[in-house]
Amino acid sequence: MKHTVLILSIFTMLFTACNDDARKTDNDAKADSLKKVETALLEQAQKVFKVLPKLAENTDNAITDAKVKLGKILYFDTRLSKEGNQSCNTCHNLTTYGVDNLPTSPGDNGGLGTRNSPTVFNAALHRTQFWDGRAKDVEEQAGMPVTNPVEMAMPDETSVIKRLSKIEAYNKMFAQAFPSEKNPMTYNNLKKAIGAFERTLITTDKFDKYLAGDASALNEQEKKGLNTFMSKGCTTCHSGAAMGGDLLMKFGIHKNYTELMDSVVVDDGLFAETKLEKDKFVFKAQSLRNVEKTWPYFHDGSVKNLKEAVQIMAKTELGQEFSEEEINDVVAFLKTLTANISEDVKTAPELP
Amino acid sequence: MKHTVLILSIFTMLFTACNDDARKTDNDAKADSLKKVETALLEQAQKVFKVLPKLAENTDNAITDAKVKLGKILYFDTRLSKEGNQSCNTCHNLTTYGVDNLPTSPGDNGGLGTRNSPTVFNAALHRTQFWDGRAKDVEEQAGMPVTNPVEMAMPDETSVIKRLSKIEAYNKMFAQAFPSEKNPMTYNNLKKAIGAFERTLITTDKFDKYLAGDASALNEQEKKGLNTFMSKGCTTCHSGAAMGGDLLMKFGIHKNYTELMDSVVVDDGLFAETKLEKDKFVFKAQSLRNVEKTWPYFHDGSVKNLKEAVQIMAKTELGQEFSEEEINDVVAFLKTLTANISEDVKTAPELP
Repeated sequence: MKHTVLILSIFTMLFTACNDDARKTDNDAKADSLKKVETALLEQAQKVFKVLPKLAENTDNAITDAKVKLGKILYFDTRLSKEGNQSCNTCHNLTTYGVDNLPTSPGDNGGLGTRNSPTVFNAALHRTQFWDGRAKDVEEQAGMPVTNPVEMAMPDETSVIKRLSKIEAYNKMFAQAFPSEKNPMTYNNLKKAIGAFERTLITTDKFDKYLAGDASALNEQEKKGLNTFMSKGCTTCHSGAAMGGDLLMKFGIHKNYTELMDSVVVDDGLFAETKLEKDKFVFKAQSLRNVEKTWPYFHDGSVKNLKEAVQIMAKTELGQEFSEEEINDVVAFLKTLTANISEDVKTAPELP
Repeated sequence: MKHTVLILSIFTMLFTACNDDARKTDNDAKADSLKKVETALLEQAQKVFKVLPKLAENTDNAITDAKVKLGKILYFDTRLSKEGNQSCNTCHNLTTYGVDNLPTSPGDNGGLGTRNSPTVFNAALHRTQFWDGRAKDVEEQAGMPVTNPVEMAMPDETSVIKRLSKIEAYNKMFAQAFPSEKNPMTYNNLKKAIGAFERTLITTDKFDKYLAGDASALNEQEKKGLNTFMSKGCTTCHSGAAMGGDLLMKFGIHKNYTELMDSVVVDDGLFAETKLEKDKFVFKAQSLRNVEKTWPYFHDGSVKNLKEAVQIMAKTELGQEFSEEEINDVVAFLKTLTANISEDVKTAPELP
């Protein structure tokens, strides 16, 4: 490639006429050709990715104000945990991009979970939830940590509802959120309310602006990074609006992740559940929106540095080694996926 | 690249000493370096792919001789279709690599199915069955075409069992296949027997020989093709033993397939079932074993030529255009995935 560039430069030197008119024409032609390249890149990006929607709709759980209000309060309420040390927001903290920036999270009684807490932002757009995809949507997901012994540690669903039903305001809010139901305060409705709230946690960033047609929203390096990202094969798993979250994929097609990361425990991924050889090291390919802020990376949170994470992906998934320049470009592009989360979203609600 | 090669040749010419000893050392060094490259390629391939197993085991459906025998007979029996025109083998013909080489297949009453009949060979290794993954294994799959109105068109499961129960030999064979059951002739056991038979339909080819450690099993072009296949990103979907069959993937990440193929009908893939935008054009990434023989390609069988199919994949999934040389190499490699199917497997059993 370098040779080609050199040869082209020589040709340019030899054949560029040195009067002003010709130079102008030459500059025009260059600008034209640059514009064509820019347009092609944008069109390609629009094909591969999608602007994030305003909400992640679910026909089985309509997003209503009453449900979202209740959902947010439940999301922040530590009374959903046995000892009262833990709310959804403890591990999926809305002030820090929906994560706690820890490799794995301590639960209600201080014990650590085994996998990294992924961000709640844009999670409702994913095809499945959890690192092994065992929950089909945010509603199903929301109910599971509450009764998980190392997470919120409530003994069972009934105890949760029993505890909440003693709080008058909750009775009222469940009734408002599920007005047609005789007995609105159920565990299923708790999941629906938290799910509806999570369906509003969709971000918007500079790359959305670019995808919407504003080619100037990304700078030169970010565009170079986008081009590298699309041409190297990253898009197989990281495409669509969320740029991931849809596929279960082997982490280590070309190289075992254990050779590249300081993993304390070797996690078999989906294999732990299915015992099928093909599911060894199969994990969900996560969304890349806000990836700059959702460190540490991978299922065990053993990698803090985004540049390192990109190189690990190149080696394990693509069987390639990115150059320093390529990594820097891709990381510059990935930083365009960082949203501004509004204060309104981050602010904790008043608990009843 | 060409420049690098040229420059290296010049260096070689300038610096190669012209006495015999030096030449010998030079040749030794070349052979050594070639061997290193060959070994690295083989090791990489062993990491990405797996030798096909002898059988596709399923803990819920042990493969026994009696089940396999019954399953093969059922597989060939046209009495599983309403008018008696159709057996499993009609569309998934064991003498032609488990397919009928038609774009889509005519059913019992002559009407055409909407999607291409994929091969039954190695299908039991896939994570899911059908083009949209709606059946979880070959047992579940086996029961579905029998009662599908455009396929084998039996009115319901009970009619199938009623018809079979009139055939004395079947009663005996079901009892032998499911010896511990009081009422062994059930639709579920029919599915299990056909499934068990299909679990034996695992092939073995030249590439397996290579993966087992015989680097000479592939010739130079086939190795070049393997290298291209692994370095271009094909392995994201086509890895493991079956080299596919595990993922549902958007057909058209970088380019709509409809722009590249003469598709009579635009098939939305998984979207047809889920109505989720992200599922538009999502289909199963098929296994590549025996791909040379299982034409025509893709969900609608609209592409007959393997070279064309490879280029379509490069454009739609990788956002790349392969050179003529790259395509020829990859196709040469893909042809190493063609097995010899033994006469024993192909031979139709005597029906009761």
